[in-house]
Amino acid sequence: MNIETYLENKRTEVERALQNLMLQASGFFEHHIEAMRYSLFAGGKRVRPILCLAAAEAVSDSAETMTNLMPVACALECIHTYSLIHDDLPAMDDDALRRGKPTNHTLFGEAEAILAGDSLLTWAFDLLSASNVSTLTAKIRLSIIQIIAKAAGPIGMVGGQSLDIACENKEFPFKTLQTIHKNKTGALITASIHAGAVGSEASTNQINQLINYGDYIGLAFQIVDDLLNVTSTTEQLGKTAGSDAKLGKATYPAFFGVEETRKKAHQAISCAKDTLIEFDNKADPLRNIADYIYSRSS
Amino acid sequence: MNIETYLENKRTEVERALQNLMLQASGFFEHHIEAMRYSLFAGGKRVRPILCLAAAEAVSDSAETMTNLMPVACALECIHTYSLIHDDLPAMDDDALRRGKPTNHTLFGEAEAILAGDSLLTWAFDLLSASNVSTLTAKIRLSIIQIIAKAAGPIGMVGGQSLDIACENKEFPFKTLQTIHKNKTGALITASIHAGAVGSEASTNQINQLINYGDYIGLAFQIVDDLLNVTSTTEQLGKTAGSDAKLGKATYPAFFGVEETRKKAHQAISCAKDTLIEFDNKADPLRNIADYIYSRSS
Repeated sequence: MNIETYLENKRTEVERALQNLMLQASGFFEHHIEAMRYSLFAGGKRVRPILCLAAAEAVSDSAETMTNLMPVACALECIHTYSLIHDDLPAMDDDALRRGKPTNHTLFGEAEAILAGDSLLTWAFDLLSASNVSTLTAKIRLSIIQIIAKAAGPIGMVGGQSLDIACENKEFPFKTLQTIHKNKTGALITASIHAGAVGSEASTNQINQLINYGDYIGLAFQIVDDLLNVTSTTEQLGKTAGSDAKLGKATYPAFFGVEETRKKAHQAISCAKDTLIEFDNKADPLRNIADYIYSRSS
Repeated sequence: MNIETYLENKRTEVERALQNLMLQASGFFEHHIEAMRYSLFAGGKRVRPILCLAAAEAVSDSAETMTNLMPVACALECIHTYSLIHDDLPAMDDDALRRGKPTNHTLFGEAEAILAGDSLLTWAFDLLSASNVSTLTAKIRLSIIQIIAKAAGPIGMVGGQSLDIACENKEFPFKTLQTIHKNKTGALITASIHAGAVGSEASTNQINQLINYGDYIGLAFQIVDDLLNVTSTTEQLGKTAGSDAKLGKATYPAFFGVEETRKKAHQAISCAKDTLIEFDNKADPLRNIADYIYSRSS
């Protein structure tokens, strides 16, 4: 399989679904919804939605499963987008560029950016609980909400971001960096795969293997992100290169140097693929995504 | 019945449940959870949780129903608390006092206040979808999540706050003020009652009547809030008095004057009580709460 084509096709499907499901900007809340839509449609790679769908594909080839998981995939992208809007705020990383475009607050102002983030997060749970978008049982949908809410919350993504900010310009042990990465980035990536597995009615064994896969590629994803922040240009990244060092953030390269970090990313990718050993060729997209994460350049 | 005693008892029950359910501050995320807990336990009146429980009581006197609805009530308070933390931010209303105490960002800093709000919102959906806190069916719990997510989102509470900020220091028609109130304050109040009704397995007819009750007291609540902002001192309110005028916000008194506004509040209370005409004395707490809202002083 050609992974670039696969990713491009899936990205297009997610894009279309987001356009169909997302609120249209009109009426009293036009400006607010415009702010939400601006960041949601600012050219994301849709990594989390694609991982969710690819995990489901590894388990089942039913078209209904894919239809059912598309709103879940879209909700994951809304949560990811909200987290970027808030991370970029002046009070946080104070970044002016994201995906090569002005960040939300530079266009809509700080207040509206905070609110657009709040609404994207809330709307994700609206979508996950909407009755007209899925034929999954209520029990499965409730499990998916629980998985995503846990991963995105205080002992997950937001907790990781809080710790990240608290540790800026401070020395801290490697264990703390692991905790930051595991929560800030890893938790939602694993949840995307976990939700895909649960939504495709995977066995407990399959679910556990896919969670392990998620943990490894979440780790690899963040290590590569740290690397790119050091080794790429702002133009290549579409966001400010070198910002980690500027903000005094600890990263893998800061702990281990560039070469050793690259090895660690490769190791994580290898472990990720090993977790899929019992899956048949329906898991090939997941295997290829793992390699793709290692080789990505933005 | 003595409404003051009723509210105090219910407030104590909600307080106890929040203490039991809420995360403890420890480990890596200690500081973050501390920031969440600070605002959650800063002495709120617990209006939304009490309305949720009182709506359920109006329908059913089963103890199991009350146990099942307590986590829903707590989730509503988390969402309300997050909205206050974000509203108070420098980029929004820039308020230093809330419930007579320093606002979250003045103690924990702006970044952490944004994140504490994000986590309270996310954690509310964690609680609503948790499998170990309720014997309600998955279908009912999913409906409750849908009701609350809709009310708290872009075409609800956050949309209302966005419109409120966009209208500061501008002239706009009364219809816009109504839309701000209905969404910023009314939506979550109605959702609290709606969730209580659905969680107590009310009939469609009862649910509709309780939604109407919620709409009227939500309106009354906001009108009285506008009045108090004009007529009370900061000490009485526990938040900055006169802040509406200072921020150039349109309010009921600004449109109608104090006396006419008082009449409108009274009228809304009367309509609220009329919606309960088919309910027996189990709805007395709701009737009394309506009167209490009219007479409250903070």
